[in-house]
Amino acid sequence: MKLFFDDRQTAHAPSRELHNGDWVPYAENIERPRSIVEAFTDWQPVRDFGMAPLLAVHDAYYIAFLERAHRDWIAAGRNGDAIGYTFPIRRRRPLGFGRIDADLGAYSYDAGTPIAAGTWESAYWSAQCALSALDELTGSDARHAFALCRPPGHHAGRDYMGGYCYLNNAAIAAREAHSRGLGPVAILDIDYHHGNGTQDIFYEDRDVFFASIHADPRTDYPFYWGHADERGEGAGEGTTLNLPLPRGTDGQSYAPALDTALAAISDWGAKFLILSFGADTHSSDPISSFALERADYVELAGRIASLGVPTLIVMEGGYAVGDLGKNVAAFLSGFQA
Amino acid sequence: MKLFFDDRQTAHAPSRELHNGDWVPYAENIERPRSIVEAFTDWQPVRDFGMAPLLAVHDAYYIAFLERAHRDWIAAGRNGDAIGYTFPIRRRRPLGFGRIDADLGAYSYDAGTPIAAGTWESAYWSAQCALSALDELTGSDARHAFALCRPPGHHAGRDYMGGYCYLNNAAIAAREAHSRGLGPVAILDIDYHHGNGTQDIFYEDRDVFFASIHADPRTDYPFYWGHADERGEGAGEGTTLNLPLPRGTDGQSYAPALDTALAAISDWGAKFLILSFGADTHSSDPISSFALERADYVELAGRIASLGVPTLIVMEGGYAVGDLGKNVAAFLSGFQA
Repeated sequence: MKLFFDDRQTAHAPSRELHNGDWVPYAENIERPRSIVEAFTDWQPVRDFGMAPLLAVHDAYYIAFLERAHRDWIAAGRNGDAIGYTFPIRRRRPLGFGRIDADLGAYSYDAGTPIAAGTWESAYWSAQCALSALDELTGSDARHAFALCRPPGHHAGRDYMGGYCYLNNAAIAAREAHSRGLGPVAILDIDYHHGNGTQDIFYEDRDVFFASIHADPRTDYPFYWGHADERGEGAGEGTTLNLPLPRGTDGQSYAPALDTALAAISDWGAKFLILSFGADTHSSDPISSFALERADYVELAGRIASLGVPTLIVMEGGYAVGDLGKNVAAFLSGFQA
Repeated sequence: MKLFFDDRQTAHAPSRELHNGDWVPYAENIERPRSIVEAFTDWQPVRDFGMAPLLAVHDAYYIAFLERAHRDWIAAGRNGDAIGYTFPIRRRRPLGFGRIDADLGAYSYDAGTPIAAGTWESAYWSAQCALSALDELTGSDARHAFALCRPPGHHAGRDYMGGYCYLNNAAIAAREAHSRGLGPVAILDIDYHHGNGTQDIFYEDRDVFFASIHADPRTDYPFYWGHADERGEGAGEGTTLNLPLPRGTDGQSYAPALDTALAAISDWGAKFLILSFGADTHSSDPISSFALERADYVELAGRIASLGVPTLIVMEGGYAVGDLGKNVAAFLSGFQA
């Protein structure tokens, strides 16, 4: 399996985030990708597929905001990372603001996703990383490819960032795969947290099936999305499947949910799979509460591989830096068994 | 003019707020009501009108949240003031959460409105303060009454807090005035900031006319509400009037907007006025950017009094503590000229 990563993905280095009422060190730090890079010897270069695939998912005014936000923050006389403090829960619509604080709220849903000097550069190359891995699976015999996307993407929507995510790498790859005729395309999200951004992007869309296994949003971020009764709307009715699980879920109790998701994806007729993989389901993860072990990753990957469709594995979360590279290596090994 | 206030309104004393990217001292502090109390000699006691008038405006589950939020915060092992960090800008709906952080986001739109130990007590008595002043104007010859509401209310919606506001005192009084047959009721909001909560509560309601003169939301909080094209919806189409003004507006340039609002209120046939008064339009206000002077307040109050309808004056913002009592006294004197 070929692996993709670009060093520019570490330009993004916020110092802190607001969590549970106060500042804490930024958990989605550059030690994460370093841990994964060190676990493998052979990495492929990331190619530049330009803006078009990004604009096929995200609104142009949102992209323009991401590009300029940190400059605007500094120009407003602020220091450090740009962060919002107020968010439009009513009458949300595109408005031309004359203040960075208004923009930060308009294009985000939380006060815990800062924009640092290198954020746009890293977000851009993280998306290109996913596209490069997708390209490996286009018109070739390769069945699996891994994109070490960082920053992750699955909390980012069409016009909003949140939860450490700015561009939705999985959604961008899914749209591009559909455009290339590789579909029907399904996205399976097995990060600990619900992939609310991905869900929103495809919620009324019949082209892409979205299934997610995640911690129950009644107790875990992102709270307001990922409940079992969210099944898509309009043309997308029935193309969203949410399988929330309780805290403490281990490999044995995780497996049936995975089988349910895989059966739904298979029944839907998927010919291409995007896998949003988070290693924050591991028992050692400092911000999550599942109890999967390394051996479980091998086993779960084997179940996913048994779907028998080309699979692009996109990295999402995972914050136990000491174990992260080994956990990712174990998971990827399950596809090659 | 009779003045109403209750000491329990100072139980609410958060220590800090998130603003423009970092913690700052809480601007809506207890020195504010103290400054106003000291400017007058005679205060009337606040009576308890119970929960029914509050529940006529706010959802029961939101009220229950306000009552229990700080206890839940402490029970979760946290310290200090309860504050949210993530907010549901998509698929917002009532959900039963098992975590205070989810509730804090669900019932708020910003990370700058903390819930302290005394918040509910003060919010409750602030609403009763407005109702007590309303009662003074019911079945009597009194034409004006002043409720020193604190915490303020105009940013609070049916099911959300924000901008230092928890219960919408003006909206509660307006509903109660309507129920008592004092209407048609109009609300005129002349705080520096748009009264987004009040607007939302009556946005589809034909019973209450809402007019607001405020700093342009393109540059000033609450940003996402108060734009000139917001005019009400459905049955409330045309019963909302927004008059945003640029930073730097002085008394001379403020007056024509006030005349426009008063003419609209008069044309609508209002027989009772609730005035959401903020003294943060004063030139010395530390968080606002208008340039009204004390003499302007006397003059503007005279224009409002010339409407000739019974008027309940409800306190909203105003953060120049040193000038606050004198500015309020000047404003109220304009009704008795």
